[in-house]
Amino acid sequence: MTTVRSHVDRRQRLREGLRADGLDALLVTDLINIRYLTGFSGSAAALWVAAADGPDEKATVLCTDGRYRTQAAAQVPDLRALIDRGYGAALVALAGAGRAGFESHVVTVDGFDKLAAADGEVELVRAPNRVEKLREVKDDSEVLLLERACAAADTALSALIETGGIRPGRTEREVARELENLMGEHGADGVSFETIVAAGPNSAIPHHRPTEAVLAAGDFVKIDFGALVGGYHSDMTRTLVLGSVAPWQQEIYELVLSAQAAGREALAPGASLKGVDAAARDVIAAAGYGQNFGHGLGHGVGLQIHEAPGIGSAATGTLLAGSAVTVEPGVYLPDRGGVRIEDTLVVRPDGPELLTRFPKELIVID
Amino acid sequence: MTTVRSHVDRRQRLREGLRADGLDALLVTDLINIRYLTGFSGSAAALWVAAADGPDEKATVLCTDGRYRTQAAAQVPDLRALIDRGYGAALVALAGAGRAGFESHVVTVDGFDKLAAADGEVELVRAPNRVEKLREVKDDSEVLLLERACAAADTALSALIETGGIRPGRTEREVARELENLMGEHGADGVSFETIVAAGPNSAIPHHRPTEAVLAAGDFVKIDFGALVGGYHSDMTRTLVLGSVAPWQQEIYELVLSAQAAGREALAPGASLKGVDAAARDVIAAAGYGQNFGHGLGHGVGLQIHEAPGIGSAATGTLLAGSAVTVEPGVYLPDRGGVRIEDTLVVRPDGPELLTRFPKELIVID
Repeated sequence: MTTVRSHVDRRQRLREGLRADGLDALLVTDLINIRYLTGFSGSAAALWVAAADGPDEKATVLCTDGRYRTQAAAQVPDLRALIDRGYGAALVALAGAGRAGFESHVVTVDGFDKLAAADGEVELVRAPNRVEKLREVKDDSEVLLLERACAAADTALSALIETGGIRPGRTEREVARELENLMGEHGADGVSFETIVAAGPNSAIPHHRPTEAVLAAGDFVKIDFGALVGGYHSDMTRTLVLGSVAPWQQEIYELVLSAQAAGREALAPGASLKGVDAAARDVIAAAGYGQNFGHGLGHGVGLQIHEAPGIGSAATGTLLAGSAVTVEPGVYLPDRGGVRIEDTLVVRPDGPELLTRFPKELIVID
Repeated sequence: MTTVRSHVDRRQRLREGLRADGLDALLVTDLINIRYLTGFSGSAAALWVAAADGPDEKATVLCTDGRYRTQAAAQVPDLRALIDRGYGAALVALAGAGRAGFESHVVTVDGFDKLAAADGEVELVRAPNRVEKLREVKDDSEVLLLERACAAADTALSALIETGGIRPGRTEREVARELENLMGEHGADGVSFETIVAAGPNSAIPHHRPTEAVLAAGDFVKIDFGALVGGYHSDMTRTLVLGSVAPWQQEIYELVLSAQAAGREALAPGASLKGVDAAARDVIAAAGYGQNFGHGLGHGVGLQIHEAPGIGSAATGTLLAGSAVTVEPGVYLPDRGGVRIEDTLVVRPDGPELLTRFPKELIVID
């Protein structure tokens, strides 16, 4: 019952923050936040977390509808379940009174009208991003799932290369499909996002969607992909070369590799997010390619493929120990080609923990 | 430029409704609605549709950020683009005055605060589901994409069966992966949703996720899947038998097949949604299996896998000509197995147009 234990701990951490801010409860309506706090993975629910609840959690209630009665009982054995298609409004009515935060970054204007119309005297207060802030720091059970997701991706890419899956004559789509298939064979429940395979000039497009373009000798092949395991996402990019390496390719590959190393080395608890971005960006700018790196350095990753923190030049705030983030600088030369190298890592006091372990040395496929 | 023409027509239809309700504009913030009205497929945008705009559409503006400047120019050559990270609030400020509807079913409470804080004198009025209502009736370019999506799914299932892909000894996941792969090879851009392959007792779970369960002789194998083409989703379910058919399997298969035919035959412009559901449900109830069909009969399908109208016992309203819907009754016997048969069809005055054409006779795989 390790998983349930971690859900209890998460709810306790949430309660500490609620009490500190004078809230009697938080009404959680974001489904990913509900999954984080309870393990419930159905498609319709709301959760009432009572700030004063003790170990028995008698006043904390999950509301879902009849389709999920059995699933709620199985996934959330430790909380009371209310079966009611009113979801959030039903929980507000059940509570009857008190000062409750609601997720104002998630609840729609029409949805708020329904909450406000519920019976009782509950005062509803804007309380955005409280669970997202907790989610930024991963606990052991989350890191374990991230590790498994990253391992599935690593193994799939190795298998793809070893079996000759990346070769001149294949299309970007064929390579993407085979890689996704291999992730499934190596433990992924699904893909983190639509796989990017970008060959030749297409590799200069940061978020290219695979096409019928055919891989050719001399191409950069940029592959950005991830596996999903137990709801957790991996995220990794590698760029390979087919045939032989031209001097310009060697140059930008080595540049991105050094920038990526600088970014990884800057990951430390307390480091400013802007500073981490700058650590990698400065390397690229110093080489004269600053204009060719037009996106942020990285982002948090977990139950969502993009979550807090964002690591970019306009970011505010600092890195937290236990945060899982990507580091993914790139240099893109329009109409020629581009390189991006990306890892998923966990921020640790004694240096970042690398989860995506596929090698980063330039691989040339003959 | 057919596609662009249809976008212009959609915006004109939207304007007629706005003028009828005394609105000067609609602020569209739902990304799928924006795609429907303009063709823009980026991940961040807002659209201001001025009710009084003539053929020049000078007062209708798409707002996106710098990442999508080129894409907006390419996908939406006929509208003015504003590049501003304020999105909706930037459009409200640009308009300056008037009575504007906003999508109150989409805009969050925090998002509304930002709109309300924008400079100017715009009066913001709740205007939910206006574009969704238009989307319920598909135009020719949409039906074409739905047909292509359904054809990719049909062809993939045929190929899977012909090559022996469904056989005892394989796992649900292996079958699901191969089917998804085949859809890609036959023209799909991706999958509509995570493929359901449910074998034996698992087939009694309406929305089972594929597991490592191994297919065995005597099993029902229920497959619910769809292809994505140009943003449009197909949706089809077929249930097969491995080995030989037991009498109880024959009985519930034939029952679901007749119920599905009754549901399809009830599809007509003006038919009550509840009546269509009842047409199929009554067949199942009359055979004594009413308790074993616990979900709605169908749903609209298009740019989303589930959209208006919902066809169920509690639905209100009537079917519209040109609506694309699924008809998917099922009978599920816990711990034994279940059957669901589902098609995607377009409602037409002279009878429904079947888009998913894979045969529905019981297929027994030796």
